[in-house]
Amino acid sequence: MRVDAKMQATGEVFMPLASAINLLLGSGGKRLRPALALLASKLYTAANNEKVVSLAAAVEMLHSATLVHDDVIDGSLLRRGQATLNASWSQGATILAGDFVFARAAFFAAETDNIRVMKIFSQTLMTIVEGELRQLYALRNWSQPKDAYYQRIYGKTAALFAAATEAGAVLGDAPEGEVELLRDYGYNVGMAFQIMDDILDFVGDPNKVGKPVGGDLRQGTVTLPVFYYLQTHPEALQIMQASGNGHTNGNPLGQLIADIAQSSAIDATRQEAVQFVETAKACLASWPASVHRQALLDLADYVVVRSL
Amino acid sequence: MRVDAKMQATGEVFMPLASAINLLLGSGGKRLRPALALLASKLYTAANNEKVVSLAAAVEMLHSATLVHDDVIDGSLLRRGQATLNASWSQGATILAGDFVFARAAFFAAETDNIRVMKIFSQTLMTIVEGELRQLYALRNWSQPKDAYYQRIYGKTAALFAAATEAGAVLGDAPEGEVELLRDYGYNVGMAFQIMDDILDFVGDPNKVGKPVGGDLRQGTVTLPVFYYLQTHPEALQIMQASGNGHTNGNPLGQLIADIAQSSAIDATRQEAVQFVETAKACLASWPASVHRQALLDLADYVVVRSL
Repeated sequence: MRVDAKMQATGEVFMPLASAINLLLGSGGKRLRPALALLASKLYTAANNEKVVSLAAAVEMLHSATLVHDDVIDGSLLRRGQATLNASWSQGATILAGDFVFARAAFFAAETDNIRVMKIFSQTLMTIVEGELRQLYALRNWSQPKDAYYQRIYGKTAALFAAATEAGAVLGDAPEGEVELLRDYGYNVGMAFQIMDDILDFVGDPNKVGKPVGGDLRQGTVTLPVFYYLQTHPEALQIMQASGNGHTNGNPLGQLIADIAQSSAIDATRQEAVQFVETAKACLASWPASVHRQALLDLADYVVVRSL
Repeated sequence: MRVDAKMQATGEVFMPLASAINLLLGSGGKRLRPALALLASKLYTAANNEKVVSLAAAVEMLHSATLVHDDVIDGSLLRRGQATLNASWSQGATILAGDFVFARAAFFAAETDNIRVMKIFSQTLMTIVEGELRQLYALRNWSQPKDAYYQRIYGKTAALFAAATEAGAVLGDAPEGEVELLRDYGYNVGMAFQIMDDILDFVGDPNKVGKPVGGDLRQGTVTLPVFYYLQTHPEALQIMQASGNGHTNGNPLGQLIADIAQSSAIDATRQEAVQFVETAKACLASWPASVHRQALLDLADYVVVRSL
């Protein structure tokens, strides 16, 4: 894939850093975000292929950079079942490696030669980081409003999905109304994607997800399945509050996590993800049938059927 | 100053983050880098004032972002005698605050509406981060070549000085030869500035510098005064090697630091800084006399006379 080739062309870079980047990008991932940028731009013949590849690489590098810093902040040693950079590098070097990946992402974005794309890109990075800060501040705030959840997952995930399709449309010289629709499509796919991620944290196969089940709740992050579960099981709030700072004896949350995983909250949450997917697909209603439009429709559907 | 106003306009931002940014920017600093960008652009009537202010803010924000991450990496609780963000925020929040400042810097750079400036900006960020990684990798490598020092201080400091004047010239629509000369001017001022910083680490007033004397050597960073001192005192290498991982008993480097501070190595190093300043000033020889050219000449001179 040309996007991968672009991201990995690090021959000119300080050796240990080049290896780190290749380790990072080699660790897989679904490349959903670059696919969104490519497909949105391909709806238009005006899109220049070189620039679209630069955009796709920028989007994926930006995503990778945020993951590197997330892993430092969480102290995660595993992601997608593989050792993180954090596990083998010193913390300082890992922070700097993340910064370098940010810089490389910004450089790829500049290679689109499109100022509007640059602005979308830098604004999205601000939104993502603000979302992560909000998440840190909301940790163990067990009785937060549901709106705070939507705001967080917008920042954490949907903002970059929306930016990918918006910027793809901009590079295709799309009319303004269509730029908006494609941005909305990306936003809704992103919201659905994160909601599914939050479900998989409860019901996913730990071997596939690459981390233990219930990690969000253990860390103090309240996700949509928890909001639904609390509606029918208000007494669970006390269990969460009693889990305190995570240093209590035993594992008070283990049973709750299992209970949530088997409750109707999972299905209610999934219905909400499906609703976001339907809204995403509706955004594409006015385009004529084409292989790229169909791929975008399929990609939206995939988000709610994936098991990882 | 309009650049400050631009940087601090964070009313729309998540509150704790807005306070952190204002704390960060309020902690002073000489604003040398934005001054370089402004002055270089002011040599040209074509420079649009709004865009030059955006560039200046971008340059200073980028600098601030790197400081935030540096302080996390070093575990520094003080900078310029004031508490760092790191001292009051959790480490995770501080990493994210640094990321946010990077994003804001990128956004200001995009506001110049100039793709070439964006590319200079993102390439410079890559160079800075690579320089810091090289510095981390070179820690306690006591017998490294002197070239490694110049490469590090280019990445750490001179790259951003050079980018500031180069981008200023680009916004002024300067002819290509003059863009190069202004970039060279910035590069040489930056090299002189960092060399002086490395001298002040030995001989500066700890109250003014805001950190204890000899910190670089204690951390294992070899700077130019050390290279000069080793030329006449090769036996000092053993003292440094014996200091090992910094966990030895007593303070084997304390006497060495005092010896270097009183040696001729300081003067030899200062001569080298003066040489960089002379080269910087020579880059401006072909411009007619003007208040902005004079300010650039004065700024170069200031770098080697400053005591902080």
